[in-house]
Amino acid sequence: MPKFMDVHSGFVGVTDAQLKAAHEADLAIEAEEGVHFERAWLDPESGKLFCLSTGPDAEAVKRVHERAGQPVTEVYEVSIEVA
Amino acid sequence: MPKFMDVHSGFVGVTDAQLKAAHEADLAIEAEEGVHFERAWLDPESGKLFCLSTGPDAEAVKRVHERAGQPVTEVYEVSIEVA
Repeated sequence: MPKFMDVHSGFVGVTDAQLKAAHEADLAIEAEEGVHFERAWLDPESGKLFCLSTGPDAEAVKRVHERAGQPVTEVYEVSIEVA
Repeated sequence: MPKFMDVHSGFVGVTDAQLKAAHEADLAIEAEEGVHFERAWLDPESGKLFCLSTGPDAEAVKRVHERAGQPVTEVYEVSIEVA
Protein backbone atom coordinates (compact mmCIF):
# COMPACT_ATOMS: atom_id res chain seq x y z
CA MET A 1 0.00 0.00 0.00
CA PRO A 2 1.46 3.39 -0.94
CA LYS A 3 2.54 5.67 1.90
CA PHE A 4 1.98 9.41 2.00
CA MET A 5 3.22 12.43 3.91
CA ASP A 6 0.96 15.45 3.82
CA VAL A 7 1.79 18.89 5.07
CA HIS A 8 -0.69 21.39 6.54
CA SER A 9 0.01 24.99 7.45
CA GLY A 10 -1.85 27.30 9.82
CA PHE A 11 -2.10 25.08 12.91
CA VAL A 12 -0.47 27.79 15.04
CA GLY A 13 -1.15 27.41 18.76
CA VAL A 14 -3.06 24.15 18.36
CA THR A 15 -2.92 22.06 21.53
CA ASP A 16 -2.32 18.38 22.06
CA ALA A 17 -6.04 17.85 22.78
CA GLN A 18 -7.06 19.76 19.64
CA LEU A 19 -4.68 17.75 17.49
CA LYS A 20 -6.01 14.51 18.97
CA ALA A 21 -9.56 15.63 18.14
CA ALA A 22 -8.55 16.48 14.56
CA HIS A 23 -6.83 13.11 14.22
CA GLU A 24 -9.91 11.32 15.58
CA ALA A 25 -12.05 13.07 12.96
CA ASP A 26 -9.82 11.59 10.27
CA LEU A 27 -9.80 8.14 11.87
CA ALA A 28 -13.59 8.11 12.06
CA ILE A 29 -14.02 8.20 8.29
CA GLU A 30 -10.69 7.06 6.82
CA ALA A 31 -11.80 3.47 6.24
CA GLU A 32 -14.43 4.66 3.77
CA GLU A 33 -11.57 5.82 1.53
CA GLY A 34 -9.21 2.92 2.26
CA VAL A 35 -6.85 5.28 4.06
CA HIS A 36 -5.14 4.95 7.44
CA PHE A 37 -3.46 7.84 9.21
CA GLU A 38 -0.56 6.37 11.18
CA ARG A 39 1.00 9.33 12.94
CA ALA A 40 1.01 13.12 12.92
CA TRP A 41 3.57 15.64 14.15
CA LEU A 42 2.84 19.29 14.86
CA ASP A 43 5.01 22.34 15.38
CA PRO A 44 2.51 24.65 17.11
CA GLU A 45 4.86 27.64 16.75
CA SER A 46 5.06 27.61 12.96
CA GLY A 47 1.71 25.87 12.56
CA LYS A 48 3.18 23.13 10.35
CA LEU A 49 1.53 19.73 10.65
CA PHE A 50 2.87 16.53 9.06
CA CYS A 51 0.62 13.49 8.65
CA LEU A 52 1.87 10.05 7.67
CA SER A 53 -0.69 7.74 6.08
CA THR A 54 -1.22 4.74 3.87
CA GLY A 55 -3.89 4.63 1.20
CA PRO A 56 -4.69 3.87 -2.42
CA ASP A 57 -3.63 7.30 -3.76
CA ALA A 58 -3.06 10.93 -2.82
CA GLU A 59 -6.60 11.91 -3.80
CA ALA A 60 -8.06 9.52 -1.22
CA VAL A 61 -5.85 11.04 1.47
CA LYS A 62 -7.00 14.52 0.45
CA ARG A 63 -10.65 13.48 0.52
CA VAL A 64 -10.42 12.19 4.10
CA HIS A 65 -8.77 15.38 5.35
CA GLU A 66 -11.25 17.54 3.45
CA ARG A 67 -14.30 15.65 4.70
CA ALA A 68 -12.94 15.88 8.25
CA GLY A 69 -12.68 19.66 7.89
CA GLN A 70 -8.92 19.98 7.49
CA PRO A 71 -8.23 20.24 3.76
CA VAL A 72 -4.67 19.87 2.57
CA THR A 73 -3.01 20.71 -0.73
CA GLU A 74 0.46 19.21 -0.19
CA VAL A 75 0.41 15.41 -0.33
CA TYR A 76 3.58 13.50 -1.22
CA GLU A 77 3.81 9.82 -2.05
CA VAL A 78 6.85 8.75 -0.02
CA SER A 79 7.79 5.57 -1.83
CA ILE A 80 11.26 5.36 -0.25
CA GLU A 81 11.86 5.13 3.48
CA VAL A 82 14.87 4.56 5.70
CA ALA A 83 14.99 3.81 9.40
CA MET B 1 14.46 15.29 24.12
CA PRO B 2 12.89 17.59 21.53
CA LYS B 3 11.80 16.03 18.25
CA PHE B 4 12.23 17.62 14.84
CA MET B 5 10.93 17.21 11.31
CA ASP B 6 13.10 18.70 8.62
CA VAL B 7 12.17 19.08 4.98
CA HIS B 8 14.59 18.96 2.05
CA SER B 9 13.80 19.72 -1.57
CA GLY B 10 15.62 18.69 -4.73
CA PHE B 11 16.00 14.94 -4.11
CA VAL B 12 14.34 14.19 -7.46
CA GLY B 13 15.11 10.71 -8.79
CA VAL B 14 17.11 9.69 -5.73
CA THR B 15 17.11 5.93 -5.28
CA ASP B 16 16.65 3.79 -2.20
CA ALA B 17 20.40 3.05 -2.12
CA GLN B 18 21.29 6.73 -2.45
CA LEU B 19 18.93 7.69 0.35
CA LYS B 20 20.41 4.97 2.56
CA ALA B 21 23.90 6.34 1.85
CA ALA B 22 22.80 9.89 2.71
CA HIS B 23 21.18 8.63 5.91
CA GLU B 24 24.34 6.71 6.85
CA ALA B 25 26.36 9.91 6.39
CA ASP B 26 24.13 11.60 8.97
CA LEU B 27 24.26 8.63 11.35
CA ALA B 28 28.05 8.57 11.21
CA ILE B 29 28.40 12.01 12.80
CA GLU B 30 25.08 12.70 14.55
CA ALA B 31 26.30 11.65 18.01
CA GLU B 32 28.82 14.49 17.98
CA GLU B 33 25.88 16.89 17.99
CA GLY B 34 23.64 14.88 20.32
CA VAL B 35 21.24 14.24 17.44
CA HIS B 36 19.62 11.02 16.29
CA PHE B 37 17.88 10.64 12.94
CA GLU B 38 15.07 8.13 13.42
CA ARG B 39 13.43 7.83 10.03
CA ALA B 40 13.30 9.52 6.65
CA TRP B 41 10.69 9.46 3.90
CA LEU B 42 11.31 10.46 0.30
CA ASP B 43 9.05 11.27 -2.62
CA PRO B 44 11.50 10.84 -5.51
CA GLU B 45 9.05 12.40 -7.98
CA SER B 46 8.76 15.79 -6.26
CA GLY B 47 12.17 15.48 -4.59
CA LYS B 48 10.74 16.18 -1.12
CA LEU B 49 12.51 14.46 1.75
CA PHE B 50 11.23 14.43 5.35
CA CYS B 51 13.59 13.51 8.21
CA LEU B 52 12.43 12.82 11.76
CA SER B 53 15.04 13.31 14.47
CA THR B 54 15.63 13.98 18.13
CA GLY B 55 18.24 16.41 19.37
CA PRO B 56 18.98 19.35 21.63
CA ASP B 57 17.79 22.02 19.18
CA ALA B 58 17.11 22.79 15.53
CA GLU B 59 20.60 24.21 15.02
CA ALA B 60 22.20 20.90 15.97
CA VAL B 61 19.98 19.08 13.45
CA LYS B 62 21.00 21.59 10.77
CA ARG B 63 24.69 21.17 11.61
CA VAL B 64 24.58 17.40 11.17
CA HIS B 65 22.85 17.64 7.79
CA GLU B 66 25.21 20.39 6.65
CA ARG B 67 28.36 18.53 7.72
CA ALA B 68 27.06 15.41 5.96
CA GLY B 69 26.67 17.38 2.74
CA GLN B 70 22.90 17.76 2.72
CA PRO B 71 22.12 21.20 4.16
CA VAL B 72 18.53 21.99 5.08
CA THR B 73 16.77 25.25 5.85
CA GLU B 74 13.37 23.98 7.00
CA VAL B 75 13.55 22.43 10.48
CA TYR B 76 10.42 22.26 12.65
CA GLU B 77 10.30 21.36 16.32
CA VAL B 78 7.36 18.96 16.44
CA SER B 79 6.47 19.14 20.11
CA ILE B 80 3.05 17.52 19.68
CA GLU B 81 2.52 14.05 18.23
CA VAL B 82 -0.42 11.72 17.81
CA ALA B 83 -0.47 8.07 16.84
